[in-house]
Amino acid sequence: MKIAVIGTGMVGRNLAAGLHKAGHDVVIGTRDPQQTLARTEPDAMGTPAYPQWQQAHPGVRLLPLAEAGAHGEVIVNASAGAHSLAALEAVGAANLAGKVLLDLALPLDLSQGMPPTLLVANDDSLGEQIQRAFPDARVVKTLNTVFTDVMVDPARVPGEHTIFVAGEDPAAKDTVQRLLRDFGWPQTAIVDLGGIRAARGVEMYSRLYFDLVAVIGNFDFNIAVVRTK
Amino acid sequence: MKIAVIGTGMVGRNLAAGLHKAGHDVVIGTRDPQQTLARTEPDAMGTPAYPQWQQAHPGVRLLPLAEAGAHGEVIVNASAGAHSLAALEAVGAANLAGKVLLDLALPLDLSQGMPPTLLVANDDSLGEQIQRAFPDARVVKTLNTVFTDVMVDPARVPGEHTIFVAGEDPAAKDTVQRLLRDFGWPQTAIVDLGGIRAARGVEMYSRLYFDLVAVIGNFDFNIAVVRTK
Repeated sequence: MKIAVIGTGMVGRNLAAGLHKAGHDVVIGTRDPQQTLARTEPDAMGTPAYPQWQQAHPGVRLLPLAEAGAHGEVIVNASAGAHSLAALEAVGAANLAGKVLLDLALPLDLSQGMPPTLLVANDDSLGEQIQRAFPDARVVKTLNTVFTDVMVDPARVPGEHTIFVAGEDPAAKDTVQRLLRDFGWPQTAIVDLGGIRAARGVEMYSRLYFDLVAVIGNFDFNIAVVRTK
Repeated sequence: MKIAVIGTGMVGRNLAAGLHKAGHDVVIGTRDPQQTLARTEPDAMGTPAYPQWQQAHPGVRLLPLAEAGAHGEVIVNASAGAHSLAALEAVGAANLAGKVLLDLALPLDLSQGMPPTLLVANDDSLGEQIQRAFPDARVVKTLNTVFTDVMVDPARVPGEHTIFVAGEDPAAKDTVQRLLRDFGWPQTAIVDLGGIRAARGVEMYSRLYFDLVAVIGNFDFNIAVVRTK
């Protein structure tokens, strides 16, 4: 599939690499590719400058946001949640219309340090905001409950553990579940929570997630929903 | 141990029955015992009137809130989250001082139906509010991530699954963990999240929990934290 990943940070790069490895035609979208390719210093999170990654992944092209959007049959929102609506606006509503928009962003407010609070929670969610802002996009919230390494390689965590999907469009959720299986998520690990309103639950879980990061001391964990047979 | 359960609803009754069965000296606190014992109709949730339950559990006495508080070495807050601060005020700060206060309430706003939103979230929690309101109580947040039947009988859900504790006082958390083991929670299932601020995460998880109730169709489930060995 033709897939556009929005976001050049660690999450976007990992998703792009994972999707490319699975055989997809992947581009990464950024505001100003020349500027991104001119960087030489690691970012504030310590992620190496983009050109280093680009060199190791020559099969993934870097494009301006709108061109990336035009390329993608599926758009992956891997931008920082605080800037996702603006980034998708730059991708362009026309380039999102009718497309599957896989949203894995968290609306984190990191201004007070760790663990972060959420910029929107409880009576709304980023997933819903995106669906409202781009009503013709077929938004599916998923993957935001695990660290980026686990997103694309669930076997880093032993045994079976759960990944959630939420969205209004059943066919879009089917497409997303195929991508999840490409990453190695077994079908039985996928829990469909229903419509996009369920983005609230998976986004609000992030608070417990970040507390668990502190307790466990690494990112190779997840939750499994355990139920009676 | 002498334990006072605050709240005569389904949750309070199940906790009281479970603690009594485990050999503890349990009382239930309510605003007006005469009124509670005069009820004949099920409540809004369909829970049978208290006298029916009382008849089946003669070993658990019903006392006014302050008397219950005076009895308990451990106080279990099983009141509705929206009314917990007022109920604990009626128990009395003096009756809470120095005591372990096991808080399992969720600050649910059910006015818009299911799934409920939270009355406090993101930058505060009910657990923290209670600790601030009663600084001499040793508040431990726990059990609020599972249905009341599972709280007192974790074997209803197969295999090992996780229960969280959070609070400022290590000795209070030890006491609470002994009670959890009385209910059948293995020590390895208990995850200590640290201080009472972690009440935010376990309370905010409730949104995902209620979505899972709808998807699974029953309450006999829980999450297990899965990590590398």
